[in-house]
Amino acid sequence: MKKFINDPEMVVVEELEGVALAHPDLVKVHFDPNYVVRADAPVQGKVGIISGGGSGHEPMHGGFVGYGMLDAACPGAVFTSPTPDQMLEATKAVDGGAGVLHIVKNYTGDIMNFEMAADLAKAEGMQVESVVIDDDVAVQDSLWTAGRRGVGSTVLAEKLCGAAAELGRSLSEVTDVCIKVKNMGRSMGMALTSCTVPHAGEPTFDLPEDEMEIGVGIHGEPGRARLPLKPADEIVEMLMEPIVSDLPYKAGDEVLLFVNSMGGTPLIELYIAYRKAYQICEQHGIKVVRNLIGSYITSLEMAGVSITLLKMDEDMLKLWDHPVLTPGLRWGK
Amino acid sequence: MKKFINDPEMVVVEELEGVALAHPDLVKVHFDPNYVVRADAPVQGKVGIISGGGSGHEPMHGGFVGYGMLDAACPGAVFTSPTPDQMLEATKAVDGGAGVLHIVKNYTGDIMNFEMAADLAKAEGMQVESVVIDDDVAVQDSLWTAGRRGVGSTVLAEKLCGAAAELGRSLSEVTDVCIKVKNMGRSMGMALTSCTVPHAGEPTFDLPEDEMEIGVGIHGEPGRARLPLKPADEIVEMLMEPIVSDLPYKAGDEVLLFVNSMGGTPLIELYIAYRKAYQICEQHGIKVVRNLIGSYITSLEMAGVSITLLKMDEDMLKLWDHPVLTPGLRWGK
Repeated sequence: MKKFINDPEMVVVEELEGVALAHPDLVKVHFDPNYVVRADAPVQGKVGIISGGGSGHEPMHGGFVGYGMLDAACPGAVFTSPTPDQMLEATKAVDGGAGVLHIVKNYTGDIMNFEMAADLAKAEGMQVESVVIDDDVAVQDSLWTAGRRGVGSTVLAEKLCGAAAELGRSLSEVTDVCIKVKNMGRSMGMALTSCTVPHAGEPTFDLPEDEMEIGVGIHGEPGRARLPLKPADEIVEMLMEPIVSDLPYKAGDEVLLFVNSMGGTPLIELYIAYRKAYQICEQHGIKVVRNLIGSYITSLEMAGVSITLLKMDEDMLKLWDHPVLTPGLRWGK
Repeated sequence: MKKFINDPEMVVVEELEGVALAHPDLVKVHFDPNYVVRADAPVQGKVGIISGGGSGHEPMHGGFVGYGMLDAACPGAVFTSPTPDQMLEATKAVDGGAGVLHIVKNYTGDIMNFEMAADLAKAEGMQVESVVIDDDVAVQDSLWTAGRRGVGSTVLAEKLCGAAAELGRSLSEVTDVCIKVKNMGRSMGMALTSCTVPHAGEPTFDLPEDEMEIGVGIHGEPGRARLPLKPADEIVEMLMEPIVSDLPYKAGDEVLLFVNSMGGTPLIELYIAYRKAYQICEQHGIKVVRNLIGSYITSLEMAGVSITLLKMDEDMLKLWDHPVLTPGLRWGK
């Protein structure tokens, strides 16, 4: 295993120490239980938003804590769900009296632990709503997941809900934004290489030099097919067809096109993917009105790409354009 | 070769097509000769700033074109200098009457071609200044370079000079900012893996599973030593010692600490590096007052890290905090 780390067991704690040293103006890091929280939390009168999941997908979620996005994030060990006490403590830390939304990716451990945390928080008198993101069209059930996996739409939900909360919307209104993203977003990914979980020490899966995994999950879960490597344009077609036909996205729709690196794919290749995905949208009469291109929901150093389409309406555009100021995403403030 | 591309010969053109489709609000892409230019260029009365170099280091430089940073960037083929005609046309395209600054990384081809372009532009009556960035303390001379290589400080020079130009400073004043960055910045990098240039088809160098290259260049040029892989904290010490002792940075200095991924190193590892680099600064009494953490000057998918220290003064802090709005770096506007 070739990694830029010290002790595999200390990766998450040392990363969080780095985050605390790097961004004291934006976030505080709480240890034991571990969570990253806005420096100014709780914001009185504002809906609090938290998310969480296994580490290894950075900047998601800890990098999205700050103005206009998350109030707190709960990082588990690498590719391992955080525990209910992390989520409960984070929920308390961000409750400014207007309730708290839990944005949960659809993985069995995350679902179970966020449910337990929500029950405990409600028992202490807090208002909590939860939305489960399940946007990955690749497979119906998967390792660690009943139903579709939650992937790229999670980033977009965190941005849009964060803006809605900053605008003073109520818990039910912010929850409605999240449900809209859940309903209007679809994703699919692929991998050229596996990643290696530090405490495992070996690649999660083996992929021969001339093959790729289409429909891979963000933990390296198997996808739809293992196929010979193809040119980028053909790969993008293989990802876009299932996405577009699933909602379905139709001529006249306005969408946000999100092209994401799994971590090890350079930006130059992401723009080649964006080019083709944009052209496919054009062919369908789908109008790309916003985009996001970069490493936002990753799988450590995995080489691969995922594509997310989110159908946008007037309100979602306004929420997208609202300022955001987090370590991982920032504009306009 | 396992890459998310179509034809290796078309990588740069297709990437630029993607950039043009993705960011029409910020940049225009000119083909043949290829350059990326601000959508609103030339900005009348403002000093124009251009840079350029081989592709494969994205987001540098094309991703830094926009408000508060570069006016244009000239991308060559992957790891190959752009040509004088690209630089000359870009210079003309951004000349708003206040002159143009060329920010040049110290590689023999870049130096030669930028010099030729500057001479041609001057012959056409334009005012042009050039500053060569040579901040890499790893080796004195290198493959493709006489003297020290230009690396991470280039990103910081583009940001600070861009702000100075937006504030209405003259060509000589903006040039002075660039010279200050050149003088006050030092960098060093290391690699865990090589990258593969698309048209070469094979890794630039071989590195056994248990070794690393200390002092590597951004094209995979040999560094100081090939050593057994060490824990991250020891690697950071090996990078920081030559950097700190070179200027030297001293107790009481205020610095910007820039921890950069060569492309294939995930964010979780960058924060582990940041943590240790910050602690080393503290031990020396050096105060980290700003930072930048992410993939900004890359070597395709190379796994590795570089660290840059830039000694800051009051004016540089003001320039750093000035709004910037480019595809690759944005805040505050």
